[in-house]
Amino acid sequence: MAQSSIRQVAVIGFGTVGVGWTALFLANGSDVTVHDPAVDDLATLEAALAPSLASLRELGRTGHGRLCLAASPEKAVASADFVQENAPEKQAFKADLLRRLDEATPAGAIIASSTSSLLWSELTGTCRDPERVIVAHPFNPPHLVPLVELFGSDPAVLDRAEAFYAGLGMRPVRLKKEMRGHIANRLSSALYQEAVHLVEQGVASVAEIDAALRDGPGLRWATMGAHLTYHLGGGKGGIRHYLDHLGPSQERRWQDLGRPSLTDKLKADLVAGVEAEAAGRSIEELEALRDATLVALLHARRRTER
Amino acid sequence: MAQSSIRQVAVIGFGTVGVGWTALFLANGSDVTVHDPAVDDLATLEAALAPSLASLRELGRTGHGRLCLAASPEKAVASADFVQENAPEKQAFKADLLRRLDEATPAGAIIASSTSSLLWSELTGTCRDPERVIVAHPFNPPHLVPLVELFGSDPAVLDRAEAFYAGLGMRPVRLKKEMRGHIANRLSSALYQEAVHLVEQGVASVAEIDAALRDGPGLRWATMGAHLTYHLGGGKGGIRHYLDHLGPSQERRWQDLGRPSLTDKLKADLVAGVEAEAAGRSIEELEALRDATLVALLHARRRTER
Repeated sequence: MAQSSIRQVAVIGFGTVGVGWTALFLANGSDVTVHDPAVDDLATLEAALAPSLASLRELGRTGHGRLCLAASPEKAVASADFVQENAPEKQAFKADLLRRLDEATPAGAIIASSTSSLLWSELTGTCRDPERVIVAHPFNPPHLVPLVELFGSDPAVLDRAEAFYAGLGMRPVRLKKEMRGHIANRLSSALYQEAVHLVEQGVASVAEIDAALRDGPGLRWATMGAHLTYHLGGGKGGIRHYLDHLGPSQERRWQDLGRPSLTDKLKADLVAGVEAEAAGRSIEELEALRDATLVALLHARRRTER
Repeated sequence: MAQSSIRQVAVIGFGTVGVGWTALFLANGSDVTVHDPAVDDLATLEAALAPSLASLRELGRTGHGRLCLAASPEKAVASADFVQENAPEKQAFKADLLRRLDEATPAGAIIASSTSSLLWSELTGTCRDPERVIVAHPFNPPHLVPLVELFGSDPAVLDRAEAFYAGLGMRPVRLKKEMRGHIANRLSSALYQEAVHLVEQGVASVAEIDAALRDGPGLRWATMGAHLTYHLGGGKGGIRHYLDHLGPSQERRWQDLGRPSLTDKLKADLVAGVEAEAAGRSIEELEALRDATLVALLHARRRTER
């Protein structure tokens, strides 16, 4: 099944992740049927989608798929070519939901779970056709951040999912082996541990640590990943020279990284630091700023991409 | 001394970091005198600076300071208002060089060391006037990445240095307490440890891990730092809700992070993976791609900054 044959998408769960996915599918011209136990009118869906659809229009994604609301998961997937599940991260609940979706979804359709912290092997054990069920973890906000991490057992299913997501403008990354947190959240968690450690040690304020990341390694990682960055850090000898000459100092630095515990005192310091950084701006204002910046950065990168 | 009173800058050490600093100072209209024991003609300096100056022109930094070459560190700093030292990262050598620079630099001028891995307290012990010596660590490439990390003992000196760097378009971040690797390299090292672990575990290729970073958390950290990102990850309750509800799972994830050793096998896998990712592109080509992308991203961010 080529990407173009996916017309009917079902979105199960309409929290932040579900909203982002729905906007992305609609803006690429797919028809979307949503089910969420907490949503029972189309006007609520449309209001939630409006800001994401506006961002996507700025990126040239101007499609207008049809939006429907279904009263049950089964009804949502009844004629779906592709299902994106975004239910709460509770293993038993999600595994049972995937079993139900597998029962109700037409043969040949793909069922993708957005799970961030559960494993494919923990979720698919009771499915009749686990091979068509995959993990497809987006990075928030899903309609703007290109990454989607894929894992499953059938390479042909993964090929089809990869083509579908790539057609939406995403960057699918396939895991060869499942691991809790996949790739991106593990990298984020490793960095956050040290960011928390630096607060704990009083090296700098929360806001200054965030500024150092945003105007330093963050900006560079938006350009080029960590491995390739160290390749350039090795001068003319590249990564081989880097590892031979600076590998030992990198290992010493790893030993020196912090192992903070989130004590009440440290949590209070983190909250106070973030509040100072937010400087009165609401979550909504910060999200709008983040999304506007992401749109600008994505536009800019297109100009330098091959 | 206000930023505008810094006219004469001395750059000691003309490797990658020294080249970036020199280009940035010149493009902002400062006169720069360079000393490097390995460089003895102005044509070599000018050739090395050309690509960096071209990138800076694209960012609107079109100044034309005068470039001079000096035969010794002492001659380079003889009439300097500001000294930027970028010698090799060897403690005894660098400490002695800073002592010599302190002897030879006019009273009132600031001496800044670009050291990435040494501490202010390890470098200034033999200086006559350690208070005017500061750590000012840039992030490669220094002419394009805004971050500069500052540490020193005299707040007034740091205020002047901060104003000078901010006037160059940089983002100074001041450490309240010195720590090896400062902030940005510690965050980078923490992330790299897990990026290496994922290769060791066979979760994905080097190129795919880099893609996940660049198109996922890297892009987002170019928008907003890690602390503020988790604030948005907490929904309407922000960071307080995040830490109360997801703090324990974050701590479990920290426990689960890898502790790889750079064995010969792993180093060979990293080298092979980076070579596959580079796909025949030379270091110079990759640097040019990185710099073009950085210029585009910096332009884009300006449009959304307050």
